[in-house]
Amino acid sequence: DDFQALYRLTQTCDVVTYEFENVPVESARWLAERLPVYPPPRALEVSQERVMEKEFFRVCGIPTPPFAAIDTEADYANAIRSLLPGVLKTRRFGYDGKGQRVIRTQEDVADAWAALGGRPLILEGFVPFERELSLVVARGQNGRIAPAPLVENLHRDGILFRTLAPAPHLSEKLTDQAITYAARLLAALDYVGVLAIEFFEVNGELIANEMAPRVHNSGHWSIDAARTSQFANHMRAVLGWPVGDAAAVGHSAMMNLVGVRPPFDTILDLPGSHMHWYGKEPRPRRKVGHVNLCAISAAERDALVDRFPGTYFE
Amino acid sequence: DDFQALYRLTQTCDVVTYEFENVPVESARWLAERLPVYPPPRALEVSQERVMEKEFFRVCGIPTPPFAAIDTEADYANAIRSLLPGVLKTRRFGYDGKGQRVIRTQEDVADAWAALGGRPLILEGFVPFERELSLVVARGQNGRIAPAPLVENLHRDGILFRTLAPAPHLSEKLTDQAITYAARLLAALDYVGVLAIEFFEVNGELIANEMAPRVHNSGHWSIDAARTSQFANHMRAVLGWPVGDAAAVGHSAMMNLVGVRPPFDTILDLPGSHMHWYGKEPRPRRKVGHVNLCAISAAERDALVDRFPGTYFE
Repeated sequence: DDFQALYRLTQTCDVVTYEFENVPVESARWLAERLPVYPPPRALEVSQERVMEKEFFRVCGIPTPPFAAIDTEADYANAIRSLLPGVLKTRRFGYDGKGQRVIRTQEDVADAWAALGGRPLILEGFVPFERELSLVVARGQNGRIAPAPLVENLHRDGILFRTLAPAPHLSEKLTDQAITYAARLLAALDYVGVLAIEFFEVNGELIANEMAPRVHNSGHWSIDAARTSQFANHMRAVLGWPVGDAAAVGHSAMMNLVGVRPPFDTILDLPGSHMHWYGKEPRPRRKVGHVNLCAISAAERDALVDRFPGTYFE
Repeated sequence: DDFQALYRLTQTCDVVTYEFENVPVESARWLAERLPVYPPPRALEVSQERVMEKEFFRVCGIPTPPFAAIDTEADYANAIRSLLPGVLKTRRFGYDGKGQRVIRTQEDVADAWAALGGRPLILEGFVPFERELSLVVARGQNGRIAPAPLVENLHRDGILFRTLAPAPHLSEKLTDQAITYAARLLAALDYVGVLAIEFFEVNGELIANEMAPRVHNSGHWSIDAARTSQFANHMRAVLGWPVGDAAAVGHSAMMNLVGVRPPFDTILDLPGSHMHWYGKEPRPRRKVGHVNLCAISAAERDALVDRFPGTYFE
């Protein structure tokens, strides 16, 4: 929100991008009137507000979990009648499980309101999903899109723990559905750059959970195990170059390192392992790095995951 | 040669490495008395002086082209009797064809001496080689080595033009010979880090041409098409971590960009292409970037090379 600094950006840059979605939309819009800003500020706006995001999914014909916007205690009382069990979330600025309360019992109902009430909220009904999948897709300025394969994500305590790429046992139907949904979102937003969409798989169908207008933790495997990494494709798109094939090369697992520094030598002794350490001081619940385990086959990948020494997650 | 600056390195670093071989050996030795320096200064010393380098190859039982050390005009007159056609080179500080004169005729003999005489020289007899191959190999502090496949290099006007990785039509015998020779050199030097060795292939056998105690231009394909890149392996070795598998993933071609800036979008439109631009101002004969073309098969790789738009080499 420092408009003098934003002005300096306009004087020194040819194009602007951003790497997390809590950039003020107003700042992105102000810049976009003066030079190209990718992804477009509209994508930022939609992904910052959970109700707007879910309504946008629905406008694009993409199913979502049941939800209700909660502005007052009366909205809340009304919504809990049909949406329990569920999760109460702040509509803005939540990530890694922050600003969320799971509601299963009447006691949870009161506790969640005590913790979060007074802010714009959303109540989302639980979906009995088989697993969480995500799609990372790039769109260039020429409109061409490069989807990575769907990947399978496992969370622990609200934080991404592990991604398998490609997701095991992918049906063609799931892949087609994901790409169809992504193509609609990208076209509707006239998107440029990398977009991530998180899905639930329910009875062999995809339900959209949320999206992120940026490179995504569930795409970090692509640094070592894709024909083009999500980072390269984001830069290609932003700079007006063609996006590259984002297909997986072999099978990989991305293991997040959260809160602890593991023994590098033990991890690098695993064949096909790649350490990505962010140079941050470990603190509880802080993502401080990730390890990509790269293999030729899914079976070899699973064996590497089994041999991964410890979980380095706290 | 600024020993105050070198002293500051000892105060702020845990380990020192270098990325080109014209670092003064004396500086590397001074540092190595105070903290770990990898690769070892002895490797630097040997690779800086062409006569010492070739004698070192021979001590390790590795064949070299015929050569003679030339310090005086009498040495020169003597050597040209048996070593023509050949190439007269300065013994130190030559690279990319600089400080070299090819000698085929009596006129060349005089011209070469006029251009280079007075410095320590080497006259190397031509070898009727089928092709040039090189090996990039990493050795960790635990002595484990990770050889990349032999690659085929094509030069133009003394500058590396293209590398095919792995080299087409590799016999097991060539690969075994390369790894055997590399293992001897690495052990003799108690080497840590990445070493490159350039070979000629003559009648299905390898003859060593020169070595470089560093990551090498003919290993740049590994950034996008190896299980572990030469850069990652050099850092792993220097930092005391295990080196990773350096095998090729699929088949790739590395095309150097010399003296010109190509149209990025045309190049990135090729499937599997990766642009590496060094951010340098193009000048004639200056390496300003390279493109890695990555494919599943050798045939697909060759088709990409054929489709590569232009040569961007001047």
